[in-house]
Amino acid sequence: MPDQLRLNAFCLNTASQLSPGSWTHPRKSSRSYLDLPFWIDIAKTLEAGKFDGIFFADTLGPFDVYDSSPKAAVRTGALMPVHDPLALVPAMAAATEHLGFGATVNLSYELPFLHARRMSTLDHLTAGRIGWNIVTGYLDSAARAAGRTAQVAHDLRYEIADEYMDIVYALWEGSWEDNSVVKDAASGSYADPAKVHVVQHKGKHFTVEAVHLCEPSPQRTPVLYQAGASPAGAAFGGKHAECIFITSATKAGAARAVTRAREQIVQQGRSPDDVAVFLMFTAVCGETDAEAQERYRQYQRFVSIEGALSLISGWSGIDFSKYAANEPIRHIENDSVRSFVDRFTGGENSKVWTVGELAEFVAIGGSSPVIVGSGASIADELQSWAAETGIDGFTLTGIVLPDTFTDFVDIAIPELQRRGAYKTEYTPGTLRHKLFGKGPRLRAPHRACNFRRA
Amino acid sequence: MPDQLRLNAFCLNTASQLSPGSWTHPRKSSRSYLDLPFWIDIAKTLEAGKFDGIFFADTLGPFDVYDSSPKAAVRTGALMPVHDPLALVPAMAAATEHLGFGATVNLSYELPFLHARRMSTLDHLTAGRIGWNIVTGYLDSAARAAGRTAQVAHDLRYEIADEYMDIVYALWEGSWEDNSVVKDAASGSYADPAKVHVVQHKGKHFTVEAVHLCEPSPQRTPVLYQAGASPAGAAFGGKHAECIFITSATKAGAARAVTRAREQIVQQGRSPDDVAVFLMFTAVCGETDAEAQERYRQYQRFVSIEGALSLISGWSGIDFSKYAANEPIRHIENDSVRSFVDRFTGGENSKVWTVGELAEFVAIGGSSPVIVGSGASIADELQSWAAETGIDGFTLTGIVLPDTFTDFVDIAIPELQRRGAYKTEYTPGTLRHKLFGKGPRLRAPHRACNFRRA
Repeated sequence: MPDQLRLNAFCLNTASQLSPGSWTHPRKSSRSYLDLPFWIDIAKTLEAGKFDGIFFADTLGPFDVYDSSPKAAVRTGALMPVHDPLALVPAMAAATEHLGFGATVNLSYELPFLHARRMSTLDHLTAGRIGWNIVTGYLDSAARAAGRTAQVAHDLRYEIADEYMDIVYALWEGSWEDNSVVKDAASGSYADPAKVHVVQHKGKHFTVEAVHLCEPSPQRTPVLYQAGASPAGAAFGGKHAECIFITSATKAGAARAVTRAREQIVQQGRSPDDVAVFLMFTAVCGETDAEAQERYRQYQRFVSIEGALSLISGWSGIDFSKYAANEPIRHIENDSVRSFVDRFTGGENSKVWTVGELAEFVAIGGSSPVIVGSGASIADELQSWAAETGIDGFTLTGIVLPDTFTDFVDIAIPELQRRGAYKTEYTPGTLRHKLFGKGPRLRAPHRACNFRRA
Repeated sequence: MPDQLRLNAFCLNTASQLSPGSWTHPRKSSRSYLDLPFWIDIAKTLEAGKFDGIFFADTLGPFDVYDSSPKAAVRTGALMPVHDPLALVPAMAAATEHLGFGATVNLSYELPFLHARRMSTLDHLTAGRIGWNIVTGYLDSAARAAGRTAQVAHDLRYEIADEYMDIVYALWEGSWEDNSVVKDAASGSYADPAKVHVVQHKGKHFTVEAVHLCEPSPQRTPVLYQAGASPAGAAFGGKHAECIFITSATKAGAARAVTRAREQIVQQGRSPDDVAVFLMFTAVCGETDAEAQERYRQYQRFVSIEGALSLISGWSGIDFSKYAANEPIRHIENDSVRSFVDRFTGGENSKVWTVGELAEFVAIGGSSPVIVGSGASIADELQSWAAETGIDGFTLTGIVLPDTFTDFVDIAIPELQRRGAYKTEYTPGTLRHKLFGKGPRLRAPHRACNFRRA
């Protein structure tokens, strides 16, 4: 367990986050996710709570596996609509000084030279607070929107992603040398052309000939996040990731995921301390345990079981509209469902989940464990999870925004701080330096460093 | 001439705007284009000056025609580096209430469903203040960065763009019907699935099957800007554009460009009043004419002739490193150079320009006319240009930011307002409504309207 827990907030640019139907809840704030002030207030709240960052997940298509249609997702507002998360970062950055931003961008649909420019621009504008959650997508609906008949096969997606990373590393780390920008007004030299290089890449999947369009930003390569749990995804994470997100509803499952993640890092010649592992979780806080339980029961009344089934179907690839609510999940036998359900149960089959129970669980905070209680109870639970799993921190999903985050900052953070388990001040510097304490840049033996010029 | 002139500010996310070398000027503000406060202050200044909008140009590659190399552009900082302009919009929008945002996005390198999502997200976050400047690119360096050996041929680019527009119109206007979003908490219905449609497009250049990922935004289709001067570009503008940007250093040339633009609109069955035509220009203001002239001479000392030649070479496709400064331009005979020089001279050959003179002219504000003087002199000139050309307004380039804009707002705007030639208050509503006074949406017979469901 680390001395101090790290915390990210988990958001999507959508109405109900990972708790479908929660948009029906009468919020404390009447503001909407469609408006900038909603997000700016959240950024300020999180910074007041000394959160390390806000993490933006994303998805590029409607969930349309349930009943072979997007109708349930559209009707209940389950991750649909889902707007561009990157557009939120500059406004939230302008209102804060320390909060980091981890933005999901699916590399399958973006040209490397333009994606590299977007990230570098944001790294400048946030003064080194940008991170990128590397994803390759999982929805055929997104592939069809992009003009393909279906997604590229899973392992091939990671092969392509691996090549993609080499291109963006070359742009970020190798195109502009250190000290290439001289800004010498007397000679009129903005940059030294001898230190600015054309990246030449001719690979299996990409051909690129480009000077990076941005001058060197504080971190160069954004802080790299990754969450792939498959063998190919985990190997990719071991090679590239600095922050790894895991999902498990049990401590034993989380501990195994942490061990696997650090093993992958070591296999790639990196130190297990070169990554921070974050467990997704959901907290419902109250001044007392009873108040928190009452709040939790209220949240449960406003979420949508149909929306949850739409999400579960999209994530697992199984059409759950075909099963009754009382159907035990272990009867729905195939590898895909089993590995999906393992995310919730940690692979422990002591409890026989029904379809309905699974949907009720997922409807509050997706597949994350839900912790309900007073500040002391929440702190007890978080410390116990951290001690027993080896994680570095948590990624807090929202149920009703901004309330979930405001309550956590008001109730749980002060208790964690009293216990010395959470920072009371930010470390100055970039997001990478805040997370790892070793400066703004990636360090060897990370693969990105190979692309620097001597 | 319209009753009141319209004004856009013209920017790129780069250090020296269209005045290469101007980064060497000792600015009033020490802030840099790399920081959000620099842009937020500009947004507030422009809104104080009741500017209709800020227009962001963009370019996706270094200028590398001059001496067959990007070295001159890199050394002088001539549109290099050039960062993502879209990232500036949310932070500037959060600090303003009325200022519009016209963002250049090159459609050649963005998938339609993702570009549509970016624009809709920004239309929401800006409360209906987003515009899109439709470009197809002109740099082979950008094509090579995208993995192509060269650009798609010019006219084919517009054919592709035409098909692209049909896809994004279908997403913006046709995927979600009016009143599709019901947000009925009692029934748990966020949207009515019967009114949310999958866009099916199978064309020559694109195949798309997608539900638009965003709920209907205030304007649906962003305000459409366009600047293509070629026959194919002008026809495209006639079909799609609401705001047309023209460039001419002479009134006669500008008047001809306005006539051509409105003819193209009429040929497409639209009313000539359905577009606003903006002339790019540069103003150097002073409390007196003498002060303004002194300021202009000072600006001239800080700009870069080499940087200007790099820009001219990139825009014209001619390597100007091969010619001496005293070479008369009319000796550099080919169609490309002639049409390029016509942009400066309005096609009038009374003046024999040399290469050096052209570079000096371009080094201040690119190819726009430069007006230097007191508030009264500037207002005289602007009113005379508007009266003699039929334009609706101007797009003001910056030489040194924020000074150029601050001076204009402090000195020229009050004089124009005193004369009744410029608004003293914003019209409430979206950017489109502010510009045309007829509501937030495009109106028939604009092609986008064909994609709405009855």
